[in-house]
Amino acid sequence: MRALVVHEILPAAAAGHTGAEVVDGTRRITYPDLYERAVRLANALQQLGVTRGAVLGIMDVNTLHNLEMHYASSMLGAVILTLNFRLSADDLLYTVRHGRADWLFVSESFQPIAAPLRQEFAKRWVWLADNREGPEPGVPTLEALVLAGSVRVPDEAARVQETDPFSLFYTTGTTGRPKGVLYRHRDMVLASLGILHHLAVHPGGAAASRHDVFFPAIPFFHIHGWGTALSVPYLGAKLVLPRRADPAEQLRLIREEGVTWTNMVPTQIHMLLNQADAAGLQDLAPLKILTGGSPLPTGLARRLRDKGVRYSLIYGGSDQLATSISVLPPDVDPTSDPAWDALARATKPLGMVEVRLVDDEGRTVPHDGTSIGRLDVRSPWLPAGYHRDAARSAASFVEGWFHTGDLAVGNPDGTHYVVDREGDALKSGGEWIATGVIEALLSEHPLVAAVAVIARRDERWGSRPLAVVHARAEVPASVLQEHLMASVRRGQLARFWVPDAFVFVDALPVTSAGKIDKAALRQSWA
Amino acid sequence: MRALVVHEILPAAAAGHTGAEVVDGTRRITYPDLYERAVRLANALQQLGVTRGAVLGIMDVNTLHNLEMHYASSMLGAVILTLNFRLSADDLLYTVRHGRADWLFVSESFQPIAAPLRQEFAKRWVWLADNREGPEPGVPTLEALVLAGSVRVPDEAARVQETDPFSLFYTTGTTGRPKGVLYRHRDMVLASLGILHHLAVHPGGAAASRHDVFFPAIPFFHIHGWGTALSVPYLGAKLVLPRRADPAEQLRLIREEGVTWTNMVPTQIHMLLNQADAAGLQDLAPLKILTGGSPLPTGLARRLRDKGVRYSLIYGGSDQLATSISVLPPDVDPTSDPAWDALARATKPLGMVEVRLVDDEGRTVPHDGTSIGRLDVRSPWLPAGYHRDAARSAASFVEGWFHTGDLAVGNPDGTHYVVDREGDALKSGGEWIATGVIEALLSEHPLVAAVAVIARRDERWGSRPLAVVHARAEVPASVLQEHLMASVRRGQLARFWVPDAFVFVDALPVTSAGKIDKAALRQSWA
Repeated sequence: MRALVVHEILPAAAAGHTGAEVVDGTRRITYPDLYERAVRLANALQQLGVTRGAVLGIMDVNTLHNLEMHYASSMLGAVILTLNFRLSADDLLYTVRHGRADWLFVSESFQPIAAPLRQEFAKRWVWLADNREGPEPGVPTLEALVLAGSVRVPDEAARVQETDPFSLFYTTGTTGRPKGVLYRHRDMVLASLGILHHLAVHPGGAAASRHDVFFPAIPFFHIHGWGTALSVPYLGAKLVLPRRADPAEQLRLIREEGVTWTNMVPTQIHMLLNQADAAGLQDLAPLKILTGGSPLPTGLARRLRDKGVRYSLIYGGSDQLATSISVLPPDVDPTSDPAWDALARATKPLGMVEVRLVDDEGRTVPHDGTSIGRLDVRSPWLPAGYHRDAARSAASFVEGWFHTGDLAVGNPDGTHYVVDREGDALKSGGEWIATGVIEALLSEHPLVAAVAVIARRDERWGSRPLAVVHARAEVPASVLQEHLMASVRRGQLARFWVPDAFVFVDALPVTSAGKIDKAALRQSWA
Repeated sequence: MRALVVHEILPAAAAGHTGAEVVDGTRRITYPDLYERAVRLANALQQLGVTRGAVLGIMDVNTLHNLEMHYASSMLGAVILTLNFRLSADDLLYTVRHGRADWLFVSESFQPIAAPLRQEFAKRWVWLADNREGPEPGVPTLEALVLAGSVRVPDEAARVQETDPFSLFYTTGTTGRPKGVLYRHRDMVLASLGILHHLAVHPGGAAASRHDVFFPAIPFFHIHGWGTALSVPYLGAKLVLPRRADPAEQLRLIREEGVTWTNMVPTQIHMLLNQADAAGLQDLAPLKILTGGSPLPTGLARRLRDKGVRYSLIYGGSDQLATSISVLPPDVDPTSDPAWDALARATKPLGMVEVRLVDDEGRTVPHDGTSIGRLDVRSPWLPAGYHRDAARSAASFVEGWFHTGDLAVGNPDGTHYVVDREGDALKSGGEWIATGVIEALLSEHPLVAAVAVIARRDERWGSRPLAVVHARAEVPASVLQEHLMASVRRGQLARFWVPDAFVFVDALPVTSAGKIDKAALRQSWA
């Protein structure tokens, strides 16, 4: 019987020649080709000595080789460890060692970053190179392995169970070492397809179908490109791989390949839109974008609308996978402002996913559209805990619920929106202040390039918000305060949430995940 | 952790008050109401003595009570046995005994049919009645149980595993006793949602979304209304239950409740369209229909188009669940004739479902658009075999593949279409003749009301096709032969497939499943 095993996706996708291509630079292959190449690779890896349970570290951008590694590894019952090459050298080494990588598969373009790891892996090293010959004579390349492997599906493939581990990756917080999360085949299949299905059955901005052309701009090391390494082959749809595309190259690929669907964090969207502006492009329709990772600023959402780009917002994370996605309310005109606003803000749990809001004492917080609570999640694909880290597991995975560490507001219609990280929010006079909400409003001001709000200790209130602003041009704090007061008058913000203090900086520090490093800011200013 | 357990669908659906209703006659409830009622019923059933593994027979049309039984039974780890009330009294009794029903839950409207079973179940009997009082004083009614039950989810609900059995039903062939099939929770969850997801991600005629209004006209005893008892609550969409609706009542509900999606076998469609014609309705848009169970005759498909009704075709069955659904090819105008034809004919396997075609010796038959082979299926939700029937299991479930007993033609694009039952098709001069194809063409003739083609023994060819025709008015066999010859000239039919002999009858015999009883015809004419 077929099970929810990753490589079981490919035979169905490859059952027909439908003309859909996987595009990687100048290479274009069909799904039957992809299936054959993955089988060849699996056999070659087996020849090389890769066995069931082996951990295969991958350091690469979104390429065909990276995609093939997903399926070949699955067929052998091996585990892929997708490496975030933006980590510090120290954290990268920690990740590889803590994850007990047996082999490393490294893109030749990452030679400098991977150099500190090279010696440790000696012969357990494969270069992801476009040609048979790689940067080191005698060291195999992935392309050579694919060409050498036989075309018969390895017997091992039928022995892989859906409860076997499929992938391991490390999530970076702003404090402490990266945390590992090990996912089983069924977790990753259900969550990846769950995103696609939710987008399809709940009318929204980034609805995806077999007729779309997909461009996953989220790196595969972030939950396999938010599941696209599995869900696009499952659909059998045209897949355009970005490789190292900068915004100009992204724009070229989107236009030339007819891309209709992509996923990006807001920062990537920002850069893409700047590029489109620079190129004098008024319209990017029919492009759809699934965004997440951080809130979609109102100003950025408006720029998307102006360019004819539809969007949906996803909430989730490396330690919970997909939890919720924004949807169009049933009775709203999809082209109206309320529709666009709904899609940028509140998210609805995926099918069979349950969320709850609790206060500091664990009491239920009502979904009344205003009360803030800590967001807990239950879903069919939650991990059992952090990999080899009992202490942090016990703190976050409690009685089947994952404590996300996010603060959210629930709505009566079952949607919710995340307002802040628990560690970033502050209590002022015993009441929560969500810094994310203040940041979103401030970022709408035309002179604000970037902003972070942090807690500063306060004798009277316990703590008070401080806004750290990177301005495009000089702007008095009073102007920004007045900007927020307008929101207070519109009922969008409580009066006591308006920061008393502003500091201005030339740049905001960011973490390896590309998020603003609030811990660093707190050290400087709190 | 949440698993793929049927009752885990409800909390997510009931998490928000979205305004979507479940409509059953004059009763209208919300999903939070449905969840509460199911919990109450589960507790009341537990009080009554229903325990884990108990088999609960249900004899009812598609009502709210029937739907509630699905979820209440799931919460107790009990198994629902959905009874086909169209079976002969003898087969019904066989079903109830072979399935080892512990309790019967019978609609008061089925008193006469259920009478022969009443004594055997004595106190293990509940009437599905709209009120607290049922037809027998002292015998509980479902409504009374719902009102009596407590609102706390029973502890048993958390102990149910996705690999526990959820439902048992009996499939009727044309020969032998009904065959039982036992499905686990995960099978039914994956297959039911799989239909919905396939319809949503592959553009087609019956695409379904949260904004649709659903009217499941397929009885729940046919695979839970082709999964709608699970998939519509999963969506949280408006659900209009048909109860005993005749075509006139169906049409009224469709129009008054704003129904946009239904499922029906071709015979039901035929009656609905006749009703619409009688009512002088030119247009049924935006109605969409998922049809299956037997081929969609070209004439009926054309009548649907003329009424603005879009459709998709599903292939599957009680012993395999959903296997494939028709889709729009990527490069075809969805409003064109080729698009309508594609949707009426070839079906594409659901994600992670694999099909193969084999000949009598088990050799692979190419998917070349013309070769006929026996259709085998592998899917994540196949049963292990027939319930308590090792012999028939061994014949049909072989090395993970289900031998469907259907003959099909595969296309190079991965789609396939079923041309006949293996037992109905005939070999003439060593070559297959698919009677279903001839029947579909003959049924397009305006004077043909219904037709069945069967094999008749032939000295020279082994066998030859014989057409048994129920004509609307007298028509010479030569006219029908000439009608088929036109198809031969268009390349749609091989010359040797045209029947040499025609017999005319006043009515064709049908089985309890509503299909033409070819076994009876063969006894009379072959």
